[in-house]
Amino acid sequence: MNDVSDRPCLLVTNDDGIEAPGLAALVAAVAHLGRVVVVAPDRERSGAGHALTLGRPLRVRSRGDDRYEVDGTPTDCVHLGVFNLTGDRPPRLVLSGINRGANLGDDVTYSGTVAGALEATLLRIPSIAFSVERDAEGRADFGIAAALAARVAEKALERGIPEGVLLNVNVPRGEPRGIRITRQGARTYRAAAVRRLDPSGRPYFWIAGADTTPAEEPDADHAAVREGYVSITPLHADMTHDPSRAVLAAWALTLP
Amino acid sequence: MNDVSDRPCLLVTNDDGIEAPGLAALVAAVAHLGRVVVVAPDRERSGAGHALTLGRPLRVRSRGDDRYEVDGTPTDCVHLGVFNLTGDRPPRLVLSGINRGANLGDDVTYSGTVAGALEATLLRIPSIAFSVERDAEGRADFGIAAALAARVAEKALERGIPEGVLLNVNVPRGEPRGIRITRQGARTYRAAAVRRLDPSGRPYFWIAGADTTPAEEPDADHAAVREGYVSITPLHADMTHDPSRAVLAAWALTLP
Repeated sequence: MNDVSDRPCLLVTNDDGIEAPGLAALVAAVAHLGRVVVVAPDRERSGAGHALTLGRPLRVRSRGDDRYEVDGTPTDCVHLGVFNLTGDRPPRLVLSGINRGANLGDDVTYSGTVAGALEATLLRIPSIAFSVERDAEGRADFGIAAALAARVAEKALERGIPEGVLLNVNVPRGEPRGIRITRQGARTYRAAAVRRLDPSGRPYFWIAGADTTPAEEPDADHAAVREGYVSITPLHADMTHDPSRAVLAAWALTLP
Repeated sequence: MNDVSDRPCLLVTNDDGIEAPGLAALVAAVAHLGRVVVVAPDRERSGAGHALTLGRPLRVRSRGDDRYEVDGTPTDCVHLGVFNLTGDRPPRLVLSGINRGANLGDDVTYSGTVAGALEATLLRIPSIAFSVERDAEGRADFGIAAALAARVAEKALERGIPEGVLLNVNVPRGEPRGIRITRQGARTYRAAAVRRLDPSGRPYFWIAGADTTPAEEPDADHAAVREGYVSITPLHADMTHDPSRAVLAAWALTLP
């Protein structure tokens, strides 16, 4: 598994699972940039968030040359990919996607696609998450997104990405009007879990993830995609809200 | 399930599961502040991250008055707790913990304890995550942490928490020397998954989560707990890295 050539190693994962067409489109689009190693979940893991599997062992199954499936999350895949499956040198770039459906606003905190890229960032490896907006029938067209992914990945290899930062790229449905560098927008939640009765008359709850309203923010990722632009948002793992530090200091809390 | 009194409703969850002693300690400590509703995972969910269960239904089982277990993540518990289990008015405050083990630095992105509080924040409800550092034998003493949790929760009810912000509270082992308002620190990862053979001779991988080195940052959560101080970090869901927006704009990317 050692990389003896000078070609950069690109690790590719996703959260829709190893059979997903968005993964195949991404791999095909970046194949000319280096050695591509695929480490992806064995099934769909949407909404997995940044979950790392600690309580049980993980199985890795070879699915061909430089192609592995893992019975875990995208975070697990990147962890194993970096440390166990790509050889002695860490990958030069980690790519996650192309996700079937946009990952925008506060929803990025649930996204397995973004989490895979985030795991790479924590391991100090540049990374990019790609998602494409679905159309009204729920279909995703990966063609333009894949061509754009190749372009962004090439630029990242050439210029580098600031340390500790990942790129969250979202491509709108249809023909994009341009590219915007955005901020992570907020969302206003209205969704409630649906309560139903099973065939035996016992209740169950099913969480619906889609019923949300983007807040109005002109430079937000939401707004860009809604207006037909590709959105590229630089994200990092640091969730500190600095302005609140002074507010909390004024609480003057003391020990019990 | 309607709350007809004027007592504030406090929703309590955790990621160590409904039987965890840290949850019991937290519930006992805040019982005098209002009506306490417990909605917690039916088993340990450490490392669950901000995972929302969308692909299958969730079961909710009553475990007594205002006490429910869910076969899901802390995020699921808060979602169901807010929308389905606490009545017509949303809870005034969501508390998560007390976690057996600290949640510091970039590790907060994996933490189910912090994710439970984050879910409340996305639903615009003030929330606080509590964790206590384990001692050298892996034991956690919840006594001081619980007394402090009551004090912080009381102050939060009185003063409010800035909108969109959650508090990540970590209590050091032993007698704390004081309280510091901190930033989320970085971590430098060295851990690799362990590769072993099962009894049939087939390989499996097990991810070890502990082997990490905190970077040196004087105002970081890590540093505070290491030096024996309680750490309180204001966090929000926005992971935008603003300084990188200009860097990316200079890439002058164009559409394919």
